[in-house]
Amino acid sequence: MKAFMDKDFLLETETARHLYHDYASKQPLADYHCHLNPQEIYEDRRFNNLAEVWLGGQNPDGSFAGDHYKWRLMRSNGVEECYITGNKPAFERFMKLVEALEMAIGNPMYHWCHLELQQFFGIYEPLTTESAQRIWDRCNDLLQNDPNMTARGLIRKANVDMIGTTDDPIDSLQWHGKIATDGTISCKVCPSYRPDKAVNIHKAGWKEYMCALAASVGKASLATMADVLDALTERLEYFHARGCKASDHGLDYVPYQDYSVQQADAVYQKALAGQALTTEEIEGYQTVILRHLGKHYHRLDIAMQLHYSCLRNNNQRIFKLQGPDTGVDAIAQNTCGGNISRLLSDLDEAGCCPKTILYSLNPADNAQLGTLIGCFQDSSIPGKIQHGSAWWFNDNKTGMEEQMRSLGNLGLLGNFVGMLTDSRSFLSYARHDYFRRILCNLIGNWVENGEYPNIDASLKRIVEGISFNNAKRYFGL
Amino acid sequence: MKAFMDKDFLLETETARHLYHDYASKQPLADYHCHLNPQEIYEDRRFNNLAEVWLGGQNPDGSFAGDHYKWRLMRSNGVEECYITGNKPAFERFMKLVEALEMAIGNPMYHWCHLELQQFFGIYEPLTTESAQRIWDRCNDLLQNDPNMTARGLIRKANVDMIGTTDDPIDSLQWHGKIATDGTISCKVCPSYRPDKAVNIHKAGWKEYMCALAASVGKASLATMADVLDALTERLEYFHARGCKASDHGLDYVPYQDYSVQQADAVYQKALAGQALTTEEIEGYQTVILRHLGKHYHRLDIAMQLHYSCLRNNNQRIFKLQGPDTGVDAIAQNTCGGNISRLLSDLDEAGCCPKTILYSLNPADNAQLGTLIGCFQDSSIPGKIQHGSAWWFNDNKTGMEEQMRSLGNLGLLGNFVGMLTDSRSFLSYARHDYFRRILCNLIGNWVENGEYPNIDASLKRIVEGISFNNAKRYFGL
Amino acid sequence: MKAFMDKDFLLETETARHLYHDYASKQPLADYHCHLNPQEIYEDRRFNNLAEVWLGGQNPDGSFAGDHYKWRLMRSNGVEECYITGNKPAFERFMKLVEALEMAIGNPMYHWCHLELQQFFGIYEPLTTESAQRIWDRCNDLLQNDPNMTARGLIRKANVDMIGTTDDPIDSLQWHGKIATDGTISCKVCPSYRPDKAVNIHKAGWKEYMCALAASVGKASLATMADVLDALTERLEYFHARGCKASDHGLDYVPYQDYSVQQADAVYQKALAGQALTTEEIEGYQTVILRHLGKHYHRLDIAMQLHYSCLRNNNQRIFKLQGPDTGVDAIAQNTCGGNISRLLSDLDEAGCCPKTILYSLNPADNAQLGTLIGCFQDSSIPGKIQHGSAWWFNDNKTGMEEQMRSLGNLGLLGNFVGMLTDSRSFLSYARHDYFRRILCNLIGNWVENGEYPNIDASLKRIVEGISFNNAKRYFGL
Repeated sequence: MKAFMDKDFLLETETARHLYHDYASKQPLADYHCHLNPQEIYEDRRFNNLAEVWLGGQNPDGSFAGDHYKWRLMRSNGVEECYITGNKPAFERFMKLVEALEMAIGNPMYHWCHLELQQFFGIYEPLTTESAQRIWDRCNDLLQNDPNMTARGLIRKANVDMIGTTDDPIDSLQWHGKIATDGTISCKVCPSYRPDKAVNIHKAGWKEYMCALAASVGKASLATMADVLDALTERLEYFHARGCKASDHGLDYVPYQDYSVQQADAVYQKALAGQALTTEEIEGYQTVILRHLGKHYHRLDIAMQLHYSCLRNNNQRIFKLQGPDTGVDAIAQNTCGGNISRLLSDLDEAGCCPKTILYSLNPADNAQLGTLIGCFQDSSIPGKIQHGSAWWFNDNKTGMEEQMRSLGNLGLLGNFVGMLTDSRSFLSYARHDYFRRILCNLIGNWVENGEYPNIDASLKRIVEGISFNNAKRYFGL
Repeated sequence: MKAFMDKDFLLETETARHLYHDYASKQPLADYHCHLNPQEIYEDRRFNNLAEVWLGGQNPDGSFAGDHYKWRLMRSNGVEECYITGNKPAFERFMKLVEALEMAIGNPMYHWCHLELQQFFGIYEPLTTESAQRIWDRCNDLLQNDPNMTARGLIRKANVDMIGTTDDPIDSLQWHGKIATDGTISCKVCPSYRPDKAVNIHKAGWKEYMCALAASVGKASLATMADVLDALTERLEYFHARGCKASDHGLDYVPYQDYSVQQADAVYQKALAGQALTTEEIEGYQTVILRHLGKHYHRLDIAMQLHYSCLRNNNQRIFKLQGPDTGVDAIAQNTCGGNISRLLSDLDEAGCCPKTILYSLNPADNAQLGTLIGCFQDSSIPGKIQHGSAWWFNDNKTGMEEQMRSLGNLGLLGNFVGMLTDSRSFLSYARHDYFRRILCNLIGNWVENGEYPNIDASLKRIVEGISFNNAKRYFGL
Repeated sequence: MKAFMDKDFLLETETARHLYHDYASKQPLADYHCHLNPQEIYEDRRFNNLAEVWLGGQNPDGSFAGDHYKWRLMRSNGVEECYITGNKPAFERFMKLVEALEMAIGNPMYHWCHLELQQFFGIYEPLTTESAQRIWDRCNDLLQNDPNMTARGLIRKANVDMIGTTDDPIDSLQWHGKIATDGTISCKVCPSYRPDKAVNIHKAGWKEYMCALAASVGKASLATMADVLDALTERLEYFHARGCKASDHGLDYVPYQDYSVQQADAVYQKALAGQALTTEEIEGYQTVILRHLGKHYHRLDIAMQLHYSCLRNNNQRIFKLQGPDTGVDAIAQNTCGGNISRLLSDLDEAGCCPKTILYSLNPADNAQLGTLIGCFQDSSIPGKIQHGSAWWFNDNKTGMEEQMRSLGNLGLLGNFVGMLTDSRSFLSYARHDYFRRILCNLIGNWVENGEYPNIDASLKRIVEGISFNNAKRYFGL
């Protein structure tokens, strides 16, 4: 029996251990897609206790923020909401989490929590109801007193080369500006352009958002579709000038209707007038924005990320109380592969298809994505179109293995840009470690089984590439 | 090489063997969803031979009944129908099954048959054309002469704590009544409420069924939708008073239209008048019933089971000859996750979401179900919403592992209510043993691989929970 | 560590090695579905170099032909098109392929290329940028000078019993005729009937094709649907007389509308008149052809192959330059299981359901296909309805294992007709070897794990069956 989560965790073969310890673990990391708050980086936030770090909860302004993965896990163990997001004492909340974790056999959160305890707190024993008090005290002591246990310290400890935050086009990026000019922060903190609110013409708040977008480019309003596109371009250039390497689109599904700007303008005017839109109209408007931005992403060498197939806010009771991103989302089923194809083909034919990373939340789409990306590769950069890393619910050993095995079967795994955390927590870099172990184990098994030759230079190049170098090349770091 | 199906069958590690032999195998079982005939339990049915037990066939009244899994297997081997469901001599029929089994490498039926021979007949050699005569004679001798080889004896032998039969709301439950008052039967035999015929307004026989439903509550007819709902409630209370712990809905897909009772009544009147219904109308009527029953399941603490994505009666030639459940069903593809979400959210917002178990016949839906259940958990009971056990066609080693691995990745495997047989045979309890071996092997591999700590008390609690205790808690046994 | 791709490649257990070396590898092979050019067989084509064999490229007439799997791989490595399909020097093109292969860890192409080097060229070292020149020289020497390295020699070397080419109904089959009467060719070269152009009433070129179909039966035109069906029947009989064993339908998805010939005729007349057709009309026309041909396939004992769920020609830029089958196809998502069911059920009820092999390009459909086939089996032949081998993008270790494991779980793996290459290359027979290794390893693992008894006669029968004997029986070779 292997020891519980020791230094060779998930590394089943000699080759895997060699690749991980000698190559993967030594690489810096690019976390090119996350939800960290740049203000907390600049202000070097410190945390009071493990419940604050791991659970968060209700903010003074009434909003809710924290790790909704863990909220969900606790709800699944029958825990009352007052311990999950409510105002119960911090240690009691932590204990309820520990009790849920004991039932979470096979769940990646079990591993993430322990990897975080190991890598950031130096704690190597299992977290149980028995050890909980000890671990709680030790962690809180470090969080409160160790000068390196702040936002910036955690980033340094994790050897982070680049952080790609997620930002609204209207954001001033003031904190990114401060970070960039602060000589003491060596990690690149790049804004990412996420224009969902402009795209979601069918969702609440769109009209108000268009006013804010207008204001962000110094206009009273955006009278036409052309104005919308110009505003989005202007803000994209603003982002680009501040180091933006990637955009992100969070879509229910990838839409496609071959609309002209003129047709989209008609839809835009209807929406401004408060009239109901058909699905075709919504998709036509969205397609025009996606094609327009795609062209400019290409011009500015910004990668386009398309995330889709999430069924959001399922539990309306919790959504109404706590808002979005509170642990009540699920995997959707969509058949939008043809739309992705047409969108990319239009851009490609026009000579302006950007670097693109495709992610579906539904792992049943892996094979389709693995084949779609191969249709739009070109000689501008190896692996121009990427099948994005196993994401969110799939961010577990099975999910990562399946995504990489699928990518290996259907494309060039060696060119994969690798892991991102998509996380709101400074401790989540442990997931890059999790990913690298799984990667090295997969490759190690192939080599040990005689499926790829044991040529160290090739293996080193592939492992270091997927760990960091491919992302470095892809995002121009 | 491991011996063929010995006592350590499917148990690859020391930990797996310990967990199975010391914990899982010693637990009683709750078969909370099956299709056993309670009359056969009460009358303590005895079987003449292995063909009768394993194949069944055409009944004296012309109908067909038996293990259609095996019929299908024989048809796949090119066997003539007269041996499968027809009147060929019993031993010849058995031999045709044996020949098909020899080709069934990798099929769970191969394992089920051998587990049944081992556990109920004490036969440990492989069933082949060579051993068939010996095994046939030995089994038939036991079936005919061993006083414990009757329906009740088989139930005792399998250490069955609870049987959940499947019953129509109009059923008098007379046999359940007799069983309950018979002091010699220690196993709980609980009726389950399956109102499909009332829900399926679009299928043949619905109108006639509504008359029977009316009669069951002492009425001449059900004039309005409200009458229908009242009748269903009255019958549900009748079931509840007789020990009903669970309902079951067998749905092509989970429907959802936000109809009021009044709107549903308009549909009901159209249907009574023999007019054609639109899909929306059908779904609206069904949604109203599902929401109504959901509310009352919650009130009575009855678990709601939703089974969907079966494509039934595909071979119309065989269906017309033999009726439903004769081996010509298949897995469907549906995208009804959003409907499940809306149904459960409506109930949850109204404060009356019942305990719910979701099963899709399509294993490609596993990930969606694993994420949907997490959206509706609450503090009333750990694991209130369940991703049901790998079911029917998925009831094999791969399918069970995938369902449990998915559940582990996405939720709390430790709270899983575990296995059910969905079977018509008294020998099928062997499938609980199959499930427990696969469960212990999965968990054993995690522990041996350092993915979960080797803390015996935790492992015991999890394994005994999934084997029996969670179902005991969930169904209030 | 196992040596890289040695004689025991992919054979992890003693049983696997025994089954492969003693049984599987000694069987001849039936490649019942490929795209070889019969003219090249008859003329015994010789190749100049490895780039010609492996890459092909642009033909003198401007068209493109070659292994588009490899084109795709090279594009994914950022290679310029002039090296992929263009006129760069052969060795430089080869080197670009070698560089891409080094990144192709986990890709079946990596294994195929090495198996081809081993089996046809006797080269056992890894193909790397270091070894590339040596291997290039050695292979080209053999290709140019070894009398056995021609089309026919490669076929002999691979012990091919039967080749099923893919042919248009209007094809004269002249090369099949010459081959059949050439006493020096022992391999059966059978035409396969692929009437896609007649079925695809909604695609460009249909109308012109109908004129060519008319001409092929000596008519000026096909005035009615009945004429179309008669022409197709006449050509099918022509094929049958020349040894046709199988048909093939390449469908976006399997259509179904219960149209009569008369209804289809109305659609036919509209299409001839250049009027737009509705989806229902298109499907109705197609269903009538499929049912008609199904009936005649049954009469002539020709197997019906239905391939579906491919999203074709995604990259319009490349498609417009290079035409179809140039590496820009992907996996589609369809929910046409119900249509397959209705089509087969109609044929079955009419007593004329042909032997049928179902293939979806989307591996998420495996479970549905595995259950659908079981609904239409009958006593005419074991395994009458087949779940086709992992195909195209799924033709890798994971894909083959999943297809066989699914088939094993849901049906009778022992009756599986096994592998086909679907290939355009004479070297692709190495993929049968790949398949057989994976098959023997899968079965070996089951036996070693005690899941199937170690009875050599049974295992031999199953392995030889799936390797060759089942196809021999199925296609009447």
